This record gives sequence, C-alpha cells and structure tokens, in this order.
Amino acid sequence: MFVMLKGNCLVAQSGGPTAAINATLCGVFKKAFEREEIQKIYGGLNGIEGIREGKLIDLSFLEDDGNRQLLLTTPASFLGSCRYKLKSCEDKREDYEKLLEVFRKYDIRYFFYIGGNDSMDTIKKLSVFFKQNDYEIKLIGLPKTIDNDLVLTDHTPGFGSSAKYIASAVKEIAADSAVYDIDSVTVIEVMGRNTGWLSMAAALARDKKGNCVCDLIYTPEIVFDYDKCREDIKEVQKHKRQVIVVISEGIKDKDGRYIENAEATDQDMFGHAQLGGAGKYLENMLKKDLGIKVRSVEINVLQRCAGHIVSKRDIEESESVGEAGVEAALEGESGKMVTMKRKENTCHYDVYFATEDINKIANYEKNVPETYLNEAKNHVSALGLQYLRPLIEGEMEVPFEEGIPAHLCVKDFIEGYRA
Amino acid sequence: MFVMLKGNCLVAQSGGPTAAINATLCGVFKKAFEREEIQKIYGGLNGIEGIREGKLIDLSFLEDDGNRQLLLTTPASFLGSCRYKLKSCEDKREDYEKLLEVFRKYDIRYFFYIGGNDSMDTIKKLSVFFKQNDYEIKLIGLPKTIDNDLVLTDHTPGFGSSAKYIASAVKEIAADSAVYDIDSVTVIEVMGRNTGWLSMAAALARDKKGNCVCDLIYTPEIVFDYDKCREDIKEVQKHKRQVIVVISEGIKDKDGRYIENAEATDQDMFGHAQLGGAGKYLENMLKKDLGIKVRSVEINVLQRCAGHIVSKRDIEESESVGEAGVEAALEGESGKMVTMKRKENTCHYDVYFATEDINKIANYEKNVPETYLNEAKNHVSALGLQYLRPLIEGEMEVPFEEGIPAHLCVKDFIEGYRA
Repeated sequence: MFVMLKGNCLVAQSGGPTAAINATLCGVFKKAFEREEIQKIYGGLNGIEGIREGKLIDLSFLEDDGNRQLLLTTPASFLGSCRYKLKSCEDKREDYEKLLEVFRKYDIRYFFYIGGNDSMDTIKKLSVFFKQNDYEIKLIGLPKTIDNDLVLTDHTPGFGSSAKYIASAVKEIAADSAVYDIDSVTVIEVMGRNTGWLSMAAALARDKKGNCVCDLIYTPEIVFDYDKCREDIKEVQKHKRQVIVVISEGIKDKDGRYIENAEATDQDMFGHAQLGGAGKYLENMLKKDLGIKVRSVEINVLQRCAGHIVSKRDIEESESVGEAGVEAALEGESGKMVTMKRKENTCHYDVYFATEDINKIANYEKNVPETYLNEAKNHVSALGLQYLRPLIEGEMEVPFEEGIPAHLCVKDFIEGYRA
Repeated sequence: MFVMLKGNCLVAQSGGPTAAINATLCGVFKKAFEREEIQKIYGGLNGIEGIREGKLIDLSFLEDDGNRQLLLTTPASFLGSCRYKLKSCEDKREDYEKLLEVFRKYDIRYFFYIGGNDSMDTIKKLSVFFKQNDYEIKLIGLPKTIDNDLVLTDHTPGFGSSAKYIASAVKEIAADSAVYDIDSVTVIEVMGRNTGWLSMAAALARDKKGNCVCDLIYTPEIVFDYDKCREDIKEVQKHKRQVIVVISEGIKDKDGRYIENAEATDQDMFGHAQLGGAGKYLENMLKKDLGIKVRSVEINVLQRCAGHIVSKRDIEESESVGEAGVEAALEGESGKMVTMKRKENTCHYDVYFATEDINKIANYEKNVPETYLNEAKNHVSALGLQYLRPLIEGEMEVPFEEGIPAHLCVKDFIEGYRA
C-alpha cells in the first residue's frame, strides 16, 4: 500500500543563471503550497553548498501573488547558486553527513534541485546516500540550462529564452551592420562550449520575408576549418555585401583544439576552460585575408540573464516543470529528473511532462544532431528550424519600474542580510 | 513679405546607428506629408555619400500607418548611413557641385539631415555653398547620437534608449553576478570615447528599495587613477561582496592616455599582440591585486541598436524632433539644428523644441558637468540622477513576429536591391 510521506519541502538552485530558473521555483512553490502533505516550504541559499551550512529560508512570502509574478521574470538564481560538485561519499563523507543532519533538522522529505548536469549528479549521489541511511525522502531534479544539453528531454527550461535573446540580438546587430554601403563581415560569438544549440538559435533571426539575416553558423559538433569558413564567406559575398557569421565559443579544429588565442588557459572555479576569443581570432584572420571591414561581437552574459526579453513559452514551461516535479514526488517518485516530451503527430507544438531515471541523465550530454544542420554543415536545416521555432514564441509582460525591469530580490526577505 | 518656398523634401541619416533615429524619420515624413508646400518626400540612401550619387527613393510607402508604426521601433538607420565627412569647398568642390546637381534635378527645397556632429558640419558647409550659388533651400539638422554630446540641446534623441538599455543590462548583469556566495568584482564597459553620459546611465540601475546596484562609475571627464579605483573597490567590499564597476571605454590616465592593454600580454595563435579595452585591462589588474574573482563584460553594439527595449519618451521626442524640424523649415529657418530644452520651474519633466544656429553646434562637444557627479567623482550625484531619470521612462509596445522583433527594411521597397 502506498503511504503518503508527510514533511517539509526544500527547493534550491545550482549552476549558471538563466532567465527562466525562477519560473521553476515559482512552479515548485505553487504546487507544494496546494498540497497538504507538504507543510513548510524552504528555499536553500546557494545550492547544496549553502544547505550544507544550514542556510535555509522560509519561502512563505511567495504565497503573495505579486511576489510570485515578479519572480517569474526575475533573471538569475533568486536563491543564489553554487558550483559545488559533490564528491563521492568515500572521498568526502562529511558533506553527506552534514546534509543529512540539516535535512533531518528541518524534516525535509521533499527536495527539488533546479540545475544542470552537475545538479543531476548531486541528486544521483544523494539518492544513494539517503537510501543507505534509511532517511526517507523524495529527491527530484528539475532541469535548467541555457545550453540545452541535457539528454532525454526535448529541450531544457531556460534555453528558449536564451534562444529568443540571441535571435533578437543577431537581428538587431545585422540591422546595425547593414547601414554602411561597404563590404563587411560581422562575426557574432555566442555561448556553447561543447554543443551548438545556442548558435543554432541565430537561424531564427529572420526578416519580414522569412529570409535569415544570419548567413553562416558554425557549431562545436562540426570540425571547424578556417579555410572552408573563409570560402563560405566569399560565396555569400557574391550576393550580399554585409555578411553575418555566428559561431559557438567552443568551435574546434580537426585536432580538437579550440579556435582561440593560444594563451587562453584560464579556468573557472569548476575547472572548465574559460573560453572566449574564437570571435576575435576569426576577426583578425578574416581582416588579413579578405581586406575588408571585419568586426566581432561577443554576445555577452545577457544571453543567459536578459529577463527583459524572455520567451513566454519558456517561462510557462519552466513553471510547469516545477509543478510536475512536485506532483511526481508526491506520487512517490525519487531519483528522477522531470523531462519535457514533444507530442508527435499533432498539428501544433505541444509538450507533456514525464520523469526519467537520474542515472540516465547525469553526466551525459546532448549534441545537436546532424539532421538539424544543413548539408554543408554551416547553417541550420529545415528540421532544425522546426525544432527551434516554437521554443521562442510569445512575449511576457515584463514589469518595469522607473524605466527598468523590476526584480524580486532575496535579500529583501532575509533579516540582517549582507549583500 | 514672407513667400512660402514650394518644392520637394529630402531626408537622410548619417553617423552611427541608434534605436531612435528612425522615429525622427517618421516625424519628418508625418509633418512633411501634412503640409502642402511640400510635394514629394524623398529619402537619401547612405547619407550625403549616397545622395551625391543620386541614390534617392520615394518615401510614399510611409503614408501607410502600419509601416510608420513598424519604423518607429526599427533600430539602426533605415535609409542607411555614411561616415563621409564633407571636406571644405576649396578642397573638394566636385562633391558640392554633384550635390547641387542632384538637389536641382529632384527640386529639393527642404533638406533634413539626421545625425551627430559631422552631420551638423555638413549642414553648415552646404548652407554656405547653396547660398553662394543662389540655390534656394532650407537646411535643417536633426540631432541623433547615443553619446548625448551635442551642445545647446538638453539631450539628444537616441540617448534615452541607450541609457535605458544600459541601466537594464547593468541591473541584469548585477543579478547574474550575485548568485555565487563569493567575493567578486564585475567590470562593465560601456561606450563613450570622450564623454561619460552613457556610463552615467548605469546609476539608474536600482533595486526595489531604490539602492543603486552599480557601486562605482568612472567617466572620461575625470582622470582615471587605477590605485584610487582599487581602493574605492576595497571600500565597497567592506559592506558588499559582489562589486559592480562601470567604466566608459574612453577613461584616460593623468597623461591623457587611454586605459587599455598597452602591454599586450595576450597573444593569438600566431603570437600577434591582442589589444584589449579598458574593461579587460582593469579585469587583469584587479585579478592580480585583489586575488578574487574578477570578470569584465563589454556592453556591446546592442547599446545603440536594441530596438526591443527602447525608451518611450525617447521615441516620442525623437519623432517630435523630426516634426519640429519640418515646421522650422516651413517657417523659413535654415542652417539650424532642432534642440530640446527642458522646461524649468515645472513639477513634471517636460521639454519644448527650439532651433539653434548650426555654427554654434557643429564641432563642439558637451561633457558631463562636474555637478552631475558625486564628490568623489566615482558615481552620479542627485542632480545627475534628476537629469537622467525622465529620459528612460516608458516602454513601447514593440511588435514581435515569430518570437523576434519585427523591423521595417528599406530593401523591401527598392526594386532590384542588392543586399
């Protein structure tokens, strides 16, 4: 017989910010608040790292509709984030024990972790540990990553808003590039270390007649050959004076080396190589070889935090992912991640929510399939466009205050908060 | 007796794009179309350079309200632009003669040139030449520049939208910077080679309680002292973990040298020196000196072409500037630039439109006055804020199509157009 687990709920956020990550938090709160099996709803500050230190806050201020509405389009992790990778239990048992202690203290029986691949790995490891220690809890991973690189889900919450930002920015930069009556190349660099989903989004930048304003797109999945790229550009120039080229930061040559300035060996706190430079590198090479005006533009961090131009569909789906997670947990599921599946054989785009075993997701990566690229592998195919189009649809009514977007800020709800 | 000059009208755009430059074009068209003294309304492609080659198009498609509405929020110069600086008549008389020939051919009796300082210089020179050649024409300059550096006008069309973009972007980047529980510095570089108006706009990035999310602002008007900046940052760190610093690209040291990576420690794959800007330079220096996470973000070209987040006030005023220009010309004025004057002694912000002799404007530059900065000259004063606030107010309903902003594109109205 299925006995309903009663207790408190904890939700936290991890990894890089997105513009939709707080919509998932809204969804978790909304659904958890409805259900009487769940008593208190806590937010964990700065992900698993903060939780380990007992940094939990009561989220009851989210009962207020206005606060929740504001949170929907507030970018970046409202609860703070971390890049803390949980080691194996053998290597750092004290982390696990501290966490168990906190969970016990607050009687946390439902834990929702909103994050990317590393967060799913955390769920996976905690599932094993809590089970071994007979601590009854439901652990659910909620996907979030602008990179769209999680497997077994049609796409990830956060990707649609980034794609919308990139497509809009590419269109605006193309308009800016077209004003002078000269031949030119504009190289636009977008994020994406290993996968080309974000650069693909540039294919959505279209004019009134449906023509793509971006001429060439290079993704990390395809070996980058500079000579071929230069010839591709010359080909475009036969019928267009201002050429727009979009590249992923992570494009690599045939030996697997990043196309970048050789000295760029900086690493971030998580040991990931700090890229940047592919655009600048191409700019320099093309200037020399083509003898025309070449500039490079790096689409900066706003591609993941531009709350002022989010995809309505993304925000709505991200919220639903949170709700689906709570429902799954209350039905007894654990060690799962909520996924989105695109309904097939329907005229219109639609998704349904499901769950998948976290072991099948953590530490896997989803690449852009070859069929989503054109034959020359320098642009997006019709199939790729069909995949992308629905994800950026719709605009949210973003609240503005004194001329700038209004945000909900966690420090306003924490006494004695030090910024 | 005042005899009304009858004939055709020509409007053109010049200099760097802005997100509001087409609103002024709308204003010119709207008012010129109303008045019967003006017969045909032409647009000159690529500014004075295209006009010299006879590249004029009939703008009657702007009689359509839908087209004009779309044009209002289309960024970058719809008619194309140029960076062509008209030499003196002694140095390049053929330019002047070619222009006169085109103006005669199309019977242009009203010319409106939308641009910055160089465009005002063009108006100034053409005024003299046309007068010498007894060609009766009214020449009016219409200001446009995100830099806000034209004299005798309270502000320039285009500045408000850039300021709104920068303030919003700084707020979003600050949200992104705040997610990790670590000490960090984010250096945000904005445009402005000689003046600090754009970096001042960062002071408008405020939280719900009215606190500025940006801690320090450095403008080119004030000598930049790196040691002082580092100490300013340390001071902020005493009460705030994630410090946000905004700088103009044009900050200079006491000897007037730009702050940039002159040392060129970065190299590309071929050992070529990579020059970085002020932001990158500060990032490197602070990393070394503070030993904490430091990153720099360059607010890219979107600060001048983000049509998706424009200031309603800026768009409306920009349109009015175009209308005021036509009215002034029809009242017989020439060799003037339209200016905006802020009404004093009123409770609410309001402007009126006037004209000023172009000779008093062309080739002058307006700096940020000291009173607009705080005492330490590392932020904006209350007076500065009072000046800025109204300029970013209000949001336009930007039309979206298939998830991205819709634009009006000139090539759709030119037969046989080669992109």
